[in-house]
Amino acid sequence: MTDMTDLSQSRCAILGGGGFIGTNLCRALQGRVAGMKIFSRRLSFPPAVSGIEWISGDFEHTDKVAEAVAGCDTVFHLLTATTPASANLDMIGDLNANVAGTLRLLDACRAEGVRRIVYISSGGTIYGIPQQIPTPESAPTSPITAYGVTKLSVEKYLHLYHHLYGLEYRVLRVANPFGPYQTAIKNQGVIAAFMRHALRGESINVWGDGSIVRDYIFIDDVISAMLAAATHEGPSRVFNIGRGEGRSLTEIVEAIEQVSGLTIPVQYGAARAIDVPRSILDITLARRELGWQPQHDFLSGMQLTWDWMRSLS
Amino acid sequence: MTDMTDLSQSRCAILGGGGFIGTNLCRALQGRVAGMKIFSRRLSFPPAVSGIEWISGDFEHTDKVAEAVAGCDTVFHLLTATTPASANLDMIGDLNANVAGTLRLLDACRAEGVRRIVYISSGGTIYGIPQQIPTPESAPTSPITAYGVTKLSVEKYLHLYHHLYGLEYRVLRVANPFGPYQTAIKNQGVIAAFMRHALRGESINVWGDGSIVRDYIFIDDVISAMLAAATHEGPSRVFNIGRGEGRSLTEIVEAIEQVSGLTIPVQYGAARAIDVPRSILDITLARRELGWQPQHDFLSGMQLTWDWMRSLS
Repeated sequence: MTDMTDLSQSRCAILGGGGFIGTNLCRALQGRVAGMKIFSRRLSFPPAVSGIEWISGDFEHTDKVAEAVAGCDTVFHLLTATTPASANLDMIGDLNANVAGTLRLLDACRAEGVRRIVYISSGGTIYGIPQQIPTPESAPTSPITAYGVTKLSVEKYLHLYHHLYGLEYRVLRVANPFGPYQTAIKNQGVIAAFMRHALRGESINVWGDGSIVRDYIFIDDVISAMLAAATHEGPSRVFNIGRGEGRSLTEIVEAIEQVSGLTIPVQYGAARAIDVPRSILDITLARRELGWQPQHDFLSGMQLTWDWMRSLS
Repeated sequence: MTDMTDLSQSRCAILGGGGFIGTNLCRALQGRVAGMKIFSRRLSFPPAVSGIEWISGDFEHTDKVAEAVAGCDTVFHLLTATTPASANLDMIGDLNANVAGTLRLLDACRAEGVRRIVYISSGGTIYGIPQQIPTPESAPTSPITAYGVTKLSVEKYLHLYHHLYGLEYRVLRVANPFGPYQTAIKNQGVIAAFMRHALRGESINVWGDGSIVRDYIFIDDVISAMLAAATHEGPSRVFNIGRGEGRSLTEIVEAIEQVSGLTIPVQYGAARAIDVPRSILDITLARRELGWQPQHDFLSGMQLTWDWMRSLS
């Protein structure tokens, strides 16, 4: 669906390219762009991105960040130094790492003549407890985790740099992505974590009573949205990216049982203050303006993910 | 209009109490609360706040901030380390000073058992270039100065601390206040600056062609809104505070000529990238929920301000 012609002459920097979304993005871009560089602290799956230039560094290393974006016209900004759970434990650290870090990145982008930044924001935390479900981009933004506040601040600085300096940007407020190359590290990615436990024959620990609803989207559909955002020319710059459908944690466990053929014991625990009860994104705008829509139904995505997880063990 | 009974037992800290709004607030609170302390770097008009405890310090002095809020139930947060013009010149400095500073303040408030924070936000910058005029609180927030981005971030952290820790807050997005004790320092307060030039027989320098429209509100009306916000119990926590009327810079000059009886030469200069063309706030929510409304018409406020300015010279 995405017209890749426009990216074929592009030189791309993928900041945070060693993680889940980044690894998938790099694989999608490989051979389809004029050049690419990964900037990240580590590579979660080195063989998956072999042959791609990797600049190893922290977001705080200003000179390394500048080196990463030098000569690039398009920057994919996937760097997040914290998680929804960890950000609340050190809000000033979260602010410094993510917001001040992005400001240094934006200055490097200006200096190096970068044309566009595609930023991965957080569809699940930026709205806080939604007053409207599915939630459109125009809904109030009242995060209940510092993680969402700093994501929102970065969005606002992107708007500001565009206004002041003409640096183009697109923001994708991504729901809950899942798929190959997702790890359960840092407690992100409930599907990856649950599948790992299932593979080991362990029981699954669920926060709360299993009723928490999220909008899960297969990673390939996120990547196609990122490619569309990299070349999009319409008036909107902020897009929700999800399936527009909600599933409870209980339904996730059932789906894993379905694709795995296993029976999985579940243990329920205390709910977390950072979790909103329901998050489902309205993806009308992305459908209309990006010409994008999810191609993978939920269960086929789950099957692909399970098969990949099994292939590792 | 404001019921002061509820504040009579209050112990208040006024952070930034040495400035324009703070000095007026302190004078309004004096003798009407059980106790009060000023925290600020300096006092613009020491005689105006004589007899009030003053803790001198920077926002970065965590121990001084903690000392200021200790034993207080109500904190008025008026501290702003930057201006709309200066913030863009050092965005990371602006972020550290205002947002990280507020996070340290919020932790001090939690530790000291503060009940409520009243925060002065920026009605003129937080919405960016408004799509709707007059602009309601629910309008999109896309600041075109870093000053507005950090004000917005502070609002979001206030919401977060309320959610996580029950710390109560009210935000007043104040338009363009003017009146006694406003100085022309740091280029804020166009009316104070213009009047000072007029008093010295100097010409007035206007950015752009004089068509920029702002919502000017007399300081006493801002103070009454702050008192109402300190005890308000309704469902809303963020309020626009202005007159809900716009005036151009040219009209400001004309009003100064009217209250002063002078003829004032004007020089027009380059427009600034940080100035939105028009900013007028919709104050319906504050009228309805705070039971507040502006009591001073524009010209009588201008006359009071002019008379005060003349009394200084």
